Amino acid sequence: MAEVDEIVKRLQAQKGVEGVIIANSEGIAIRSTLEDQHTVQYVALIQPLLVKAKKMLLEMDPSDDFTYLRVRTEKNEIIITADKEYFMVAIQKPAP
Amino acid sequence: MAEVDEIVKRLQAQKGVEGVIIANSEGIAIRSTLEDQHTVQYVALIQPLLVKAKKMLLEMDPSDDFTYLRVRTEKNEIIITADKEYFMVAIQKPAP
Repeated sequence: MAEVDEIVKRLQAQKGVEGVIIANSEGIAIRSTLEDQHTVQYVALIQPLLVKAKKMLLEMDPSDDFTYLRVRTEKNEIIITADKEYFMVAIQKPAP
Repeated sequence: MAEVDEIVKRLQAQKGVEGVIIANSEGIAIRSTLEDQHTVQYVALIQPLLVKAKKMLLEMDPSDDFTYLRVRTEKNEIIITADKEYFMVAIQKPAP
């Protein structure tokens, strides 16, 4: 698990990164650089979006594989990557 | 409406772009460079994802605004932008 901490630390140290969350496929955060309240809220909101994106992709092209999801807003960029067991969320300030 | 056609034409001419769809907020395609069957399928799949992303954002930060959603897969990149009345989907080969 030290490896996970190393990844989170390195990501969090990147310029503009505001928060990093790693959660399991049941939606339980296993690492987060955010306050608990935000962590729980973000995971609860992001997981259904991830599930829907994967489902959409499966119906569009079953032979294709999900890589990542990027939600760009006025203030932030939310990047969501996932494998079978975990998903990772990075929230960052958009590059100028 | 000629302006919309011009935008679609210019987007479709971009290297790697496989398809462009413009649909209204009721999920009716008003322009598409794809076959009807794909257009209807993609709009039906993408619209709920867009609605969910916007809802997620509203709950995360009501003062923030949605800009775009990018779904990256092994084979493609699906970019979804939207304003109040319309949303646009561009499907492209990811840059190498």
